[in-house]
Amino acid sequence: MALAVAAGERVRGTTSPNPPVGCVILDADGELVGEGATRPPGGAHAEVVALAQAGERARGGTAVVTLEPCAHHGRTPPCTRALLDAGLARVVHAVSDPNPQAAGGGDVLRAAGVHVESGLLAEEVERGTLRAWLHYARTGRPHVTWKYAATLDGRVAAADGTSRWISSEESRAEVHELRTKIDAIMVGTGTVRTDDPSLTARATRSGQDVTRQPLRVVVGMGDLPRGARVLDDEAETMHLRTHDPDVVLGALAARGVVDVLLEGGPTLAGAFAGARRIDRVLAYLAPKFLGDGPSALRDAGVSTVTGAVALVVEQVSMCGPDVRVSAVMPSGAAR
Amino acid sequence: MALAVAAGERVRGTTSPNPPVGCVILDADGELVGEGATRPPGGAHAEVVALAQAGERARGGTAVVTLEPCAHHGRTPPCTRALLDAGLARVVHAVSDPNPQAAGGGDVLRAAGVHVESGLLAEEVERGTLRAWLHYARTGRPHVTWKYAATLDGRVAAADGTSRWISSEESRAEVHELRTKIDAIMVGTGTVRTDDPSLTARATRSGQDVTRQPLRVVVGMGDLPRGARVLDDEAETMHLRTHDPDVVLGALAARGVVDVLLEGGPTLAGAFAGARRIDRVLAYLAPKFLGDGPSALRDAGVSTVTGAVALVVEQVSMCGPDVRVSAVMPSGAAR
Repeated sequence: MALAVAAGERVRGTTSPNPPVGCVILDADGELVGEGATRPPGGAHAEVVALAQAGERARGGTAVVTLEPCAHHGRTPPCTRALLDAGLARVVHAVSDPNPQAAGGGDVLRAAGVHVESGLLAEEVERGTLRAWLHYARTGRPHVTWKYAATLDGRVAAADGTSRWISSEESRAEVHELRTKIDAIMVGTGTVRTDDPSLTARATRSGQDVTRQPLRVVVGMGDLPRGARVLDDEAETMHLRTHDPDVVLGALAARGVVDVLLEGGPTLAGAFAGARRIDRVLAYLAPKFLGDGPSALRDAGVSTVTGAVALVVEQVSMCGPDVRVSAVMPSGAAR
Repeated sequence: MALAVAAGERVRGTTSPNPPVGCVILDADGELVGEGATRPPGGAHAEVVALAQAGERARGGTAVVTLEPCAHHGRTPPCTRALLDAGLARVVHAVSDPNPQAAGGGDVLRAAGVHVESGLLAEEVERGTLRAWLHYARTGRPHVTWKYAATLDGRVAAADGTSRWISSEESRAEVHELRTKIDAIMVGTGTVRTDDPSLTARATRSGQDVTRQPLRVVVGMGDLPRGARVLDDEAETMHLRTHDPDVVLGALAARGVVDVLLEGGPTLAGAFAGARRIDRVLAYLAPKFLGDGPSALRDAGVSTVTGAVALVVEQVSMCGPDVRVSAVMPSGAAR
């Protein structure tokens, strides 16, 4: 299953609106004979890729897959069919498919005499490779990660507006790596006017070229300045003239966007936090203090301490000299 | 040495202006025959306490002590004399004494034919039990730990001024435990007016009674409100009518205060941060967002990002649901 998870992780950011699933095939003797991951939309699912590699050696073997195999005919035939045709004896999957259209694959396989197990490394997959897609499948809304870099006193810029750089080189490199794994990057019009970011993923730490750029999304009523970097040809850009997070998420879902990185600024983040439409927060906190300047979040509609937007810390660790905090909305908190 | 460190830690907060030293004595066969820690000022030093317990069994044995034994005659005779009188063959200490008056104990012992080693667990002692005292011995200033509890967006209260409770019960209990280990708690007059805190250490998690209260220090020009809790009989209170951190630290050093806990508010913390008189920051960050309300730090005299007060993270961990960050001023940063 760890191999299947890794295979899925490698294609994260290239499969939406389909899930980045990973699959390995073991033959009847337990030897690895195939490995695959979801191809870009319209292409083969992970099971089919892995089965093609395994060929006849799959017969009597085991498929290990991060998500319950689909039982429906979408742009590709159901994976359950492919698994049955290949003559597999056993299917082990991490998480069940919450999508009512595609679900029930386990039952279909069982009815056909295949031994089906579920739950292996389920938590790792739920929190990792399939987190965004599972959220999207369950709620119909793209998964929103709010990423910000601030000082320990919560400032995202100094009194004079300077913000380069609050966080370390290591943290900034990690964010570029993250951008290669998501579908869309979102900022407010204020950030475009103030910082003129290009919002593209640049060379990764591993030195690999970035072959695919996420969609750039700018939210707000104001016009974008002529010549703004987000209007260049490096990636596609969508300007949504609204302040309503649900309107934004609806428009993105309609485009097949599953995984969104909200990169600010404080006003847009405040609107999303206030609407409880931030599913995860990824904070890079530099061990610095400014004592003045804008805070990471503004206008979240909270006036008293008991009304705070409350999350649960999932992981805390170091990224170079900075503290990295990953916190998630407790399940059931979103309306 | 780990036993000696633990013995010193147990008396932390009761020995100032003397260091909370721990000592164990092993006999010639390496068996533990004595253990001791610094008694309150005027009382015996750790070595003398441990030697008294060991008695004649110390002869030919080893003293393991967190700090180089003193060679000077203060309120008590030099520890080097006591060690020589007891006939010890070997002395192992963690850190050397930076105090010019008391230093040289190692040389005195060596000249008398004792085998002396230093450096064992030195870093642990430097960062732990003896951190504050070593800072005080080297700079003449009390060591300042700024403790604050804030949301991840750096707020210490909501827009309506409510702040109970930003941090978790676990974090608050830990702070009470911390208060039993320091010499003085410091706040600004603004905090006294706004929160009316009692600034006492209450029952600890271990259920032990608190036998000693730290000095309460209020800094600022304004008068304290009649009936303020800091004026009750629970502990002594000192009101310093100044805004200058160095005047405050001078007054505290003159009273033998070695280890100070700065508990806010944002203006006082800003004055200390701006003067680079915060030696350590202990932040309890609750995974909550307010988007409004006062930030943890104000007016630190920083206007641009490159002028930020920069620290180094020493430890990051969880305290209940909160993130606990301990960061220290890089050596040489204080003027």
